[in-house]
Amino acid sequence: MQDETEIEEARRRIQAAYDTDGFRALGHELIDLLTGHLKSAGNSRRAVLPWREPEINVREAESLLGAWRDSAIDSSSLGDHFGKIVRTMLDRGINLHDPRYIGHQVPAPPPVAGLFDAVGAVTNQVMAIYEMGPWATAVEEAMVNRLGEEIGWRTGTFSGLSTHGGSLANLTALLTARNVSLKDSWELGVSPHDPANPPVVVVHADAHYSVSRAVAVLGLGTRGVVKTRLDDRRRMDPAVLDDTLTMLRGRNQPVVAVVACACATPIGAFDPLTEIAEVCRRHSVWLHVDAAHGGSVIFSDRHKHLVSGLKHADSVAWDAHKMMFAPALCAFVLYRDRSHRFEAFRQEAPYIFDPSVAGLLEYDVGLKTIECTKRATAFGVWGLWALFGRRLFSDLVDVTFDLGQIFYHKLEAASDFEALHEPECNILAFRHLPKGLVGMPGEVIGEFQLNLRRRLIESGEFYIVSTKIDGIGALRVAIMNPLTTAVHFDQLLDALRVHGEKIDLQSQE
Amino acid sequence: MQDETEIEEARRRIQAAYDTDGFRALGHELIDLLTGHLKSAGNSRRAVLPWREPEINVREAESLLGAWRDSAIDSSSLGDHFGKIVRTMLDRGINLHDPRYIGHQVPAPPPVAGLFDAVGAVTNQVMAIYEMGPWATAVEEAMVNRLGEEIGWRTGTFSGLSTHGGSLANLTALLTARNVSLKDSWELGVSPHDPANPPVVVVHADAHYSVSRAVAVLGLGTRGVVKTRLDDRRRMDPAVLDDTLTMLRGRNQPVVAVVACACATPIGAFDPLTEIAEVCRRHSVWLHVDAAHGGSVIFSDRHKHLVSGLKHADSVAWDAHKMMFAPALCAFVLYRDRSHRFEAFRQEAPYIFDPSVAGLLEYDVGLKTIECTKRATAFGVWGLWALFGRRLFSDLVDVTFDLGQIFYHKLEAASDFEALHEPECNILAFRHLPKGLVGMPGEVIGEFQLNLRRRLIESGEFYIVSTKIDGIGALRVAIMNPLTTAVHFDQLLDALRVHGEKIDLQSQE
Repeated sequence: MQDETEIEEARRRIQAAYDTDGFRALGHELIDLLTGHLKSAGNSRRAVLPWREPEINVREAESLLGAWRDSAIDSSSLGDHFGKIVRTMLDRGINLHDPRYIGHQVPAPPPVAGLFDAVGAVTNQVMAIYEMGPWATAVEEAMVNRLGEEIGWRTGTFSGLSTHGGSLANLTALLTARNVSLKDSWELGVSPHDPANPPVVVVHADAHYSVSRAVAVLGLGTRGVVKTRLDDRRRMDPAVLDDTLTMLRGRNQPVVAVVACACATPIGAFDPLTEIAEVCRRHSVWLHVDAAHGGSVIFSDRHKHLVSGLKHADSVAWDAHKMMFAPALCAFVLYRDRSHRFEAFRQEAPYIFDPSVAGLLEYDVGLKTIECTKRATAFGVWGLWALFGRRLFSDLVDVTFDLGQIFYHKLEAASDFEALHEPECNILAFRHLPKGLVGMPGEVIGEFQLNLRRRLIESGEFYIVSTKIDGIGALRVAIMNPLTTAVHFDQLLDALRVHGEKIDLQSQE
Repeated sequence: MQDETEIEEARRRIQAAYDTDGFRALGHELIDLLTGHLKSAGNSRRAVLPWREPEINVREAESLLGAWRDSAIDSSSLGDHFGKIVRTMLDRGINLHDPRYIGHQVPAPPPVAGLFDAVGAVTNQVMAIYEMGPWATAVEEAMVNRLGEEIGWRTGTFSGLSTHGGSLANLTALLTARNVSLKDSWELGVSPHDPANPPVVVVHADAHYSVSRAVAVLGLGTRGVVKTRLDDRRRMDPAVLDDTLTMLRGRNQPVVAVVACACATPIGAFDPLTEIAEVCRRHSVWLHVDAAHGGSVIFSDRHKHLVSGLKHADSVAWDAHKMMFAPALCAFVLYRDRSHRFEAFRQEAPYIFDPSVAGLLEYDVGLKTIECTKRATAFGVWGLWALFGRRLFSDLVDVTFDLGQIFYHKLEAASDFEALHEPECNILAFRHLPKGLVGMPGEVIGEFQLNLRRRLIESGEFYIVSTKIDGIGALRVAIMNPLTTAVHFDQLLDALRVHGEKIDLQSQE
């Protein structure tokens, strides 16, 4: 009896948590809070990065979990409490919508994209099997079809899937390549037939770290990564690749795949894919292209020549949450040959995949992806396309690439800055070289860039990132907010000068 | 010149897409659409599953990508267009908020959880390195700390991370176990020292398919999966496990891990973790517990005894998007021993992890997770906790487990239904056995259940799932909408009777 009363009370509390009128009130409150936040961030009235030590933020996040205990929160004060929580989330987060955010390859998405994403989050539309996510699956399939056609593949001949990020996209594609090239590895493991000649993956020397990680995850070991020498523009050199593959084939060493980049992250260099594909074809090696950043270049008539060879790849990783400006995470894996679509996870379909309806397994995306339950990853990018049309994506490429050129020319015109390459896209590595630094050892110059960046980002004035070029630290921007302007670049250079002057070059403090 | 004009026009179009007043208008429209939808779904005024053939949905999703081309959409008609897109997303998706959804282990979340998630999606707060997601990281750390403390571990001694789903959680934990037990496998690959005795993972025979998948992904091969015989309640038997490990150790076969379940999916059976942990300890084997569903039982005073041995596990997978009723995806991996937190991905920290600030790497979650850029996975569950307090999670366990008992007693009272076990939680497998089916071969009985379920779900009246028990098809419910009531169970049994009568038992058509 006491039990029943307790359950009844629990049920009442749950009903309150699911109340739809309450949801409506909090929802409208949220939209106003978000709008106000986007306005102030867009107008640079906040710090780009509100820097605080991690421990302080963690303590605050923990204390909010205890807030409920400490005060009497009922339905009338729920809105206030909700507002306080949301404001904290907004106050403590980084502001990608500030045009002074010129940082990682993570975009400031058109805010409405997050609304499409929220449809999935509020209703919890997920996938794995078609019947759990009929619309999530349809949207993913529609996007896969369009992206494959953009690459230049014929409808019905290719296949693909979406997954939670470029790292998983690379892992999934390389898993497919592993299973295809080492035919019994899914069942028997990757134990090499000849331990002196273990299988390898031939990788662009500047490839994203997720590629060598994937090789090690898949049981091939980091020693299974063979890096190829780059040309003077940090691109994979087809002739060097040819020599490498000839050497490996000559000693009968299994080659799981070649991984090329479109583009590689450090300076945004696009590999000559057509030539690389020709070499791979000649050696019968799987070509995977990490086009996480650059796949979207295909939307732009001005720039699509950079990825004209993409159609020859066996597999492609393409992040919609980079240059299609969708909210994270929505990455695609595309296979040129449709027959590979179930090769990554070769096992017998488990019971949750109902074989009682012919043809349905084709739409059970869980058979193709590493996730079982998978959120509706493609709602954001699909919604952007449906609302604004394909032209939005070409505009975003054109405008951010143009900004890359503008910044490059500003650097070239400044005597105390050095652009480290001519930009092919919206990624640019550079260094600040104030007078006192000229002629110093590379190590000192590199350390100065890292110190300078840290001062800059902690000031909240700008957010940029760092990289290493030839082992020496450098500054780097990826222009991922299309509302950044030439004026912001001038301000950035000035801010770097001001912070640079505060660094004691002797002690680097 | 023409170039400049084109770029200028592109910039204007982009500004329109980022317009904050436009965002506000569409945002409020979204909240009203979602509220209306939740109300009608909650009142069962829609089909639970609006069944349509996949091809039809895919075609519609594709046609919406072309809609923009076909009509002149300007800012004044943007709201209409947006409304049409969102209504389609809602009309075509499954309705977890309908109390007749009694299906997979995917919950109907309190809708406000999706609003917290939307804060992350709209502002695109992500992680990998702390500075990109200072608040996302803090929220994840706060949740890891609380969950570890709930398990019974001492603050500061354990560690953890969140990832995109239970499959990745199992993969990450087993990768850690692989790297710890096969010490050079990250660098050298998994090639066994003795090919006749390759490394194995000892697995609960009913474990989720992601476990054997993970073993194959990690290069150990599906033959590296050793399934242990279950007891008569489909739990892992510590004595059998002991024999298995003794046998494996006796022939010097490397054991990467033991995988136990809390609970296993088919009938929701909870393993005797304390006894299993004791066996593992004796044999010095890593114990991983897949507590994707059952970890949250720890919040309930009534039911936490089911996972009292969880504290002895070396690693735990725990999905907040199951029994903490958060929107997908938010799964946690927890390590009892903090020193293992960087073992999954052993490589040197790549350049994006800035070593210039001491102690910061500790908060660069990308070093611990398979994702590089990672969305703010924990915003939904953290927001629920912050808004409603810890008691919400205990209420949800108590109420849904109570509903499991209520349904069980209804089945026991019905002569034409058979419960296949007494439920330990909110998962229950059963069969409908109308008169004509009694005495038929198991295969016929199983096929009938699958046909029956398909008719039922395609009718839109209820959504339930299927499983196989001892190789024979069965019906199965997971009560993941806490607003389901006893009345719905009566209606479900009636609906199954009505659809069952339409099946010709001879031809099963």
